[in-house]
Amino acid sequence: MPGEFTLIDRIRARATTRGDVALGIGDDAALLRVPAGQLLAVSTDTLVAGRHFPDDTDAADLGWKALAVNLSDLAAMGAAPAWCTLALTLPRADVTWLDAFCDGFLELAQVHDVALVGGDTTAGPLSVTVTVHGFVADAGASRRDAARVGDEVWVTGTIGDAAGGLKQWQGRGLASAKLRHRLDRPTPRVEAGIALRGLARAAIDLSDGLAADLGHVLAASGVGAEIELGRLPTSGPLADQFPDERERWQLQLSGGDDYELCFTAPAADAFAIEQALAACDTIGTVVGRIVAGAGLSLRTPDGEAFDLAGAGFDHFAGHA
Amino acid sequence: MPGEFTLIDRIRARATTRGDVALGIGDDAALLRVPAGQLLAVSTDTLVAGRHFPDDTDAADLGWKALAVNLSDLAAMGAAPAWCTLALTLPRADVTWLDAFCDGFLELAQVHDVALVGGDTTAGPLSVTVTVHGFVADAGASRRDAARVGDEVWVTGTIGDAAGGLKQWQGRGLASAKLRHRLDRPTPRVEAGIALRGLARAAIDLSDGLAADLGHVLAASGVGAEIELGRLPTSGPLADQFPDERERWQLQLSGGDDYELCFTAPAADAFAIEQALAACDTIGTVVGRIVAGAGLSLRTPDGEAFDLAGAGFDHFAGHA
Repeated sequence: MPGEFTLIDRIRARATTRGDVALGIGDDAALLRVPAGQLLAVSTDTLVAGRHFPDDTDAADLGWKALAVNLSDLAAMGAAPAWCTLALTLPRADVTWLDAFCDGFLELAQVHDVALVGGDTTAGPLSVTVTVHGFVADAGASRRDAARVGDEVWVTGTIGDAAGGLKQWQGRGLASAKLRHRLDRPTPRVEAGIALRGLARAAIDLSDGLAADLGHVLAASGVGAEIELGRLPTSGPLADQFPDERERWQLQLSGGDDYELCFTAPAADAFAIEQALAACDTIGTVVGRIVAGAGLSLRTPDGEAFDLAGAGFDHFAGHA
Repeated sequence: MPGEFTLIDRIRARATTRGDVALGIGDDAALLRVPAGQLLAVSTDTLVAGRHFPDDTDAADLGWKALAVNLSDLAAMGAAPAWCTLALTLPRADVTWLDAFCDGFLELAQVHDVALVGGDTTAGPLSVTVTVHGFVADAGASRRDAARVGDEVWVTGTIGDAAGGLKQWQGRGLASAKLRHRLDRPTPRVEAGIALRGLARAAIDLSDGLAADLGHVLAASGVGAEIELGRLPTSGPLADQFPDERERWQLQLSGGDDYELCFTAPAADAFAIEQALAACDTIGTVVGRIVAGAGLSLRTPDGEAFDLAGAGFDHFAGHA
């Protein structure tokens, strides 16, 4: 059975690099050059089997997702990705599995020119922790505490698809491959995050669901929000598979794993935002507005209040 | 039971910070300022229960160790530590355990002025991944590939203590608290690593044992080494508890978890090195020399060749 050093060598041989990497995988630490005048943005996220992804997730999809969820955090800050490290805990030293994992991980790394500069492999229950690094100018970062009363609330793409895919997998019945693909291979909105610099005030990525994640923005900014459920951007597959609108709203509000961006901006900037998002092939939809007060109020198309049962994805609440 | 957000808030409330942290824990990413003219050094290491530490390890000791093993990697590069992220996977949302873990982690963070700038908590089998960041000037870093024929091979401190502590724990018999303390609370040689800038040629930290780790330096540098076993720096407790010198050499060569530094340097610099180490209260010992060829040759005090059975700690070989 191959040991740890063989696994590291296998990853190292394929690792992506870039010109600002002075020393990559293979020493005690990587040595990296941060451009003058830029802030370093750093984020870390762990995926645990059976908790953050279904046990039957394909290794290549898992590799993609482990990097995607981290790039999504950089996107929410408006940061341009540069480097990452990978800490991989595997039940067995399975090189076929590892190669497939690297296929998915490195495919996404190449899309965004991210160098894999360090890592650790160890034996244990399957778990992946990635730390990503990117750059953003001091004034360009979109923070959670910057929402202001009167801002419009936007989301990119469509929401609820990943939660729908997860719900179908949990039910073990007929399942939509398109919804499952959105669960397994989320698209980090890196270009959109960069395009929104100077336009988005507050921003966050939707990892735990719109209600919970927008809730973080509201709490940090000291404001409330009104969301119109009839405006939530909904994919064709989600509408087909979940025709009951109340069940669908629940998925869209409480379901995690969309990795779309939610951001706020002055209404006067709406046209500039649509143009900026269109330039990177991303749909943006206004779903509500920031109001004085606290918390989230939800309105159906009939103008009724909607009561949300769950408060969003909590990794200790046994969601997945 | 408290959820993920409560645990993160608990860590956030206590997190250390520093002046170069523009934005710490609580947003999608931390925003950090790297000093002009410095390289960023980044390293990541995972500790898995039962694999990298005994199951009965005290939570505070584990917190200390999780940061220490990462700071040790920066020390081996001669980098000054600055920031870290913490990804913590816990079987239960146990706030008493978490508080104790933070006690140990933050105690060591304060010693080295390390800011905790981000993290992730999730449910699953106990595992800790830390990513550390530090600074080093381009010419100051000690790389693995820089050993030259004729260099002396040094180690800091004493070696084999942690392996002795682990062996006693595995045997479940009488155990030395001093050896166990070395296993649970290793001292990262941060000051020594910085003091050795410009003096050490190649350097590595001893996480997997002298034979395996020095082996990495030899392979990267394309040289061999001769080690004199009679010179290995040995603590009083290790000599007392393991009087058989062959068993002790085995522990010192193959046992991991010492987190001392091993480095090479020209013999002419020996006095300067002793002075530099003495200034940070660290013992340094010459244990051999770099020779032409490849691999490690080991000599007993009688001049006999010593055959090492194990090749060092391999996390897939079921060591711990």
